[in-house]
Amino acid sequence: MKTRERILQASLALFNEQGERQVTTNHIAAHLGISPGNLYYHFRNKEQIVAELFSRYETQLADSLALPVDRGLVAEDKVHYLETLFQGIWDYRFLYRELEHLLLSDPALSARFRPFAQRCIAQGRAIYQGLVDGGILCAERTDPQAMAINSWLLLTNWVSFLCSVVSNEPGQALDQRLLRRGVHQVLALERGLLTPEAAVVVEQAMADFYQPLPGLDA
Amino acid sequence: MKTRERILQASLALFNEQGERQVTTNHIAAHLGISPGNLYYHFRNKEQIVAELFSRYETQLADSLALPVDRGLVAEDKVHYLETLFQGIWDYRFLYRELEHLLLSDPALSARFRPFAQRCIAQGRAIYQGLVDGGILCAERTDPQAMAINSWLLLTNWVSFLCSVVSNEPGQALDQRLLRRGVHQVLALERGLLTPEAAVVVEQAMADFYQPLPGLDA
Repeated sequence: MKTRERILQASLALFNEQGERQVTTNHIAAHLGISPGNLYYHFRNKEQIVAELFSRYETQLADSLALPVDRGLVAEDKVHYLETLFQGIWDYRFLYRELEHLLLSDPALSARFRPFAQRCIAQGRAIYQGLVDGGILCAERTDPQAMAINSWLLLTNWVSFLCSVVSNEPGQALDQRLLRRGVHQVLALERGLLTPEAAVVVEQAMADFYQPLPGLDA
Repeated sequence: MKTRERILQASLALFNEQGERQVTTNHIAAHLGISPGNLYYHFRNKEQIVAELFSRYETQLADSLALPVDRGLVAEDKVHYLETLFQGIWDYRFLYRELEHLLLSDPALSARFRPFAQRCIAQGRAIYQGLVDGGILCAERTDPQAMAINSWLLLTNWVSFLCSVVSNEPGQALDQRLLRRGVHQVLALERGLLTPEAAVVVEQAMADFYQPLPGLDA
């Protein structure tokens, strides 16, 4: 593997484990057994590493949110969207652990984040509209924009919710299984809006993705 | 007003305007025209000021979430709960702007926050159960625990959503009217779960609280 790629992969792993703020370029170089000068040859500073990781996340997410080109949406699609979205959030969870801090201390990232979020919500709206058009969600009571905004809030804040409310130790490693409950919670948004046929599929998926949250669920 | 109270009120105003991280005890003393020594006579450090403000917020929130003792819940109660909760979040918005950072850098606050959040969610669950018992939400499809968790996520992240996704300038003052849209979004959680009589009240409230979000709503 090329050094540039090794730096990116090690940075992502360290940021996810320890938090982006706790990791310096010196830590990353030491972790890889390369000199700081070698790292600076590839990246001017940590912001540039974060920027490149964010670009990868953007690309991965755009793929995850694409609509099928040759058919309408079916109930199973929604579950698949959510699994893929939560996996992306898990892979880049450092972004969402301390998003406010990251955006306040990195104006270039902040300038990219806002249109990115707005594109994601617009695409989420198109997906919910596709679920209405596909007869999965009831047309009269479903507001695709309100659903997209609420899904965004649940998805992007699920990891920090697990850290600040659910797990017992702030520094404790996150249990990836608790992401499955996030899928359950986003599906719960549409529980009252499902047409009878779709309800069978989504209720089953909600049961499959249920995971008790330590400290919260009795 | 006593000096101690003046310090608390000035701190809250400065934290909300500028972010807790940007404000030092020296700023607070200078703002009040008192000496740093006078401030330290009342509060050992900034953490102690934050701890006292958090206690006030806890008390205010416990009042906001109380169930009526002499009657069941009606559809209008839900709207009132949400208005009061969002007002509390607005009054103490510095807590939610950079919650992760605040909790990571203040272990004593972090130790208080987790049980506080868990109590709030338990009380939210009791409120949703009360709405089921009062015939406002459909019993078969309403999971009060899932609703309470989703409401918590929307409520506590609404301010940072406005800052990171909606408004154009990270430092720009928040428009308090956009909180109303937060009420609309939490009401949208239960849109498909309402019994027909309650639907009339809640649909009207959703229309009343609708506020377009700049950059997001066309």
